[in-house]
Amino acid sequence: MKRRQFLGTAGASALLTGGILSGCGQESNPTAAGVAPQQQKYQWKMVTTWPKNFPGLGTGANSLARLIGEMSGGRLTVKVYGANELVPAFEVFDAVSSGTAELGHGAAYYWKGKSEAAQFFAAVPFGMTAQEMNAWLYYGGGMPLWAEVYAPFGVLPAAAGNTGLQMGGWFNKEINGVEDLQGLKMRIPGLGGEVLKRAGGTPVNLPGGEIFTSLQSGTIDATEWVGPYNDLAFGLYKAAKYYYYPGWHEPGTTLECLLNKQAFEALPADLQSIVSNACRVANADMLSEYTARNNTALQTLVNEHHVDVREFPRPVLDKLRVISEQVVAEIAGQDAMSAKVYESYQHFRKQVVAWHDISERTYLNVRGD
Amino acid sequence: MKRRQFLGTAGASALLTGGILSGCGQESNPTAAGVAPQQQKYQWKMVTTWPKNFPGLGTGANSLARLIGEMSGGRLTVKVYGANELVPAFEVFDAVSSGTAELGHGAAYYWKGKSEAAQFFAAVPFGMTAQEMNAWLYYGGGMPLWAEVYAPFGVLPAAAGNTGLQMGGWFNKEINGVEDLQGLKMRIPGLGGEVLKRAGGTPVNLPGGEIFTSLQSGTIDATEWVGPYNDLAFGLYKAAKYYYYPGWHEPGTTLECLLNKQAFEALPADLQSIVSNACRVANADMLSEYTARNNTALQTLVNEHHVDVREFPRPVLDKLRVISEQVVAEIAGQDAMSAKVYESYQHFRKQVVAWHDISERTYLNVRGD
Repeated sequence: MKRRQFLGTAGASALLTGGILSGCGQESNPTAAGVAPQQQKYQWKMVTTWPKNFPGLGTGANSLARLIGEMSGGRLTVKVYGANELVPAFEVFDAVSSGTAELGHGAAYYWKGKSEAAQFFAAVPFGMTAQEMNAWLYYGGGMPLWAEVYAPFGVLPAAAGNTGLQMGGWFNKEINGVEDLQGLKMRIPGLGGEVLKRAGGTPVNLPGGEIFTSLQSGTIDATEWVGPYNDLAFGLYKAAKYYYYPGWHEPGTTLECLLNKQAFEALPADLQSIVSNACRVANADMLSEYTARNNTALQTLVNEHHVDVREFPRPVLDKLRVISEQVVAEIAGQDAMSAKVYESYQHFRKQVVAWHDISERTYLNVRGD
Repeated sequence: MKRRQFLGTAGASALLTGGILSGCGQESNPTAAGVAPQQQKYQWKMVTTWPKNFPGLGTGANSLARLIGEMSGGRLTVKVYGANELVPAFEVFDAVSSGTAELGHGAAYYWKGKSEAAQFFAAVPFGMTAQEMNAWLYYGGGMPLWAEVYAPFGVLPAAAGNTGLQMGGWFNKEINGVEDLQGLKMRIPGLGGEVLKRAGGTPVNLPGGEIFTSLQSGTIDATEWVGPYNDLAFGLYKAAKYYYYPGWHEPGTTLECLLNKQAFEALPADLQSIVSNACRVANADMLSEYTARNNTALQTLVNEHHVDVREFPRPVLDKLRVISEQVVAEIAGQDAMSAKVYESYQHFRKQVVAWHDISERTYLNVRGD
């Protein structure tokens, strides 16, 4: 019995962490109650770090929950809670860890308090794009490392969404050179904020609801948010003069589904497969949604609201890149796990940059409009 | 009863053609035999256009079949047949249409004999990348059009894989200018071949198994295949001097799963959802696999086999782009359906190029190595 359970556990992990070829078989785990697992019904909770129904991120969590219910024919239903409905946004990880909720939806960089290494699984300044992140996670060793980072907490990770490349942000000051970053008060959280600080700026942390007013009143000079789709909905174009690109600080932010390990492993094998593959569908689907909706929103911003879209000057990006490399390397110095993840990330990044230099990058430069 | 069946059918189509939010509910179709659909077992066949277990493409079909079996807990099992095992590669579409097999795995450009419009759902020279294709298909109107193209044949389409950007090919002649395309004998099928022909070259059609010898003996001067992962396995570097990029002719080839409409609609709703979402997983997973394996293979080609990797000169790409635009526009002139698909494709391409110009493209140019 023990050996079988061990195999079941190994299978469950492989399902979440490998390429889809490496999933486990169709053997069902026996349940303690002796009920045939195909007849047992499960009602799960999903806590999220997003406001309920927030476009793209919150609706992505809703879709994931729906998919699980749909594919399982109602055997496993998932009720989604927005931030603060059941627990506050930043307690989502603990809620899943303790089993208060079986699932969580958020982004790994929120949990750097648990492990600095977590940040590599969301977004790294000047790091990998969405397509590259997925390749690293599923075929480059990323997922097993992510599982290792969350293992001490009884939490299994799954990639469950991606915003694609974000925008540089909304500015009321022109950025013509590195000197314009001096004293710049910008709402930019996380690693990007740390990079801005070392470049002479003042990163400010503000909840989403206060950004518009702060920008309009001049309390801050600039803010990043997500990209055209979310930014248009927020009306940020009404409070800023310039819309800068590219989003160097979040080049393809991976969202995550957190799974309570015990709850997941208690599922029969087919429901385990349904849950982990629903995450894969949600992961790809959000990127498609953002790509399509960003297109349309950008047209609206430019053609209807006459937004002044500008590229960061190259010396500014060069400066931010050099600082980013230092900031990211310092995470590796924090602990052994962070060093291991950093090494894997950097190794894959180097190879994929070489490949995309002669494929995606050259192609995008020559294909015409 | 009639109305309910109609709703069921509409739901089934939405499942395959919309964003994941627009799938149908969990209501099961009644079966004629009166057996509860949750207990009924289905054994399906999948015919493919690939040699059995061909790396990436054939193994992608295998993964898709496995996933369906796994998520359905064995209620729906799929046996995969390589090309010529049950039907020849180019009879896969007809086999699914007639119900000889319930599923097929191939690429839409093989079926231009059925409809010229089919080519837009695989690869278009100087067209959209993998990420862009997915955005168009799921959120830009592409899937409903694809379904419309296959509807007369009783076949439902699903995107079920992507190779990512391919390579320009292996050459034994240097390409220094447009004049070097004159008389160039190159193995390049489909629209790319037509473009080469109009540029003065001689496109040659050769099955995979004859490429190596033809290149080595000088029967052809050049060949395209897929990308580093498949090209390395084929040993093409032993028969050619130069490896050119980028793959202008196939910038993100979408593979497909063909579904026999009647068989699909006879499934209970949960199995319909499992089948259509397994396709979505397979679609994303193949791109991750190719991205990761192309990286590694490129390193091997360059570092171990000292392959001379070269970029096509810009005037050559400019020439090929102008011709490509003509060739693609001519498809639109063939019939009303092709015109409709062309218009949708071009509209989305224009918008996504504008968005990716200020996101992916700029970012890839500035992020450093």
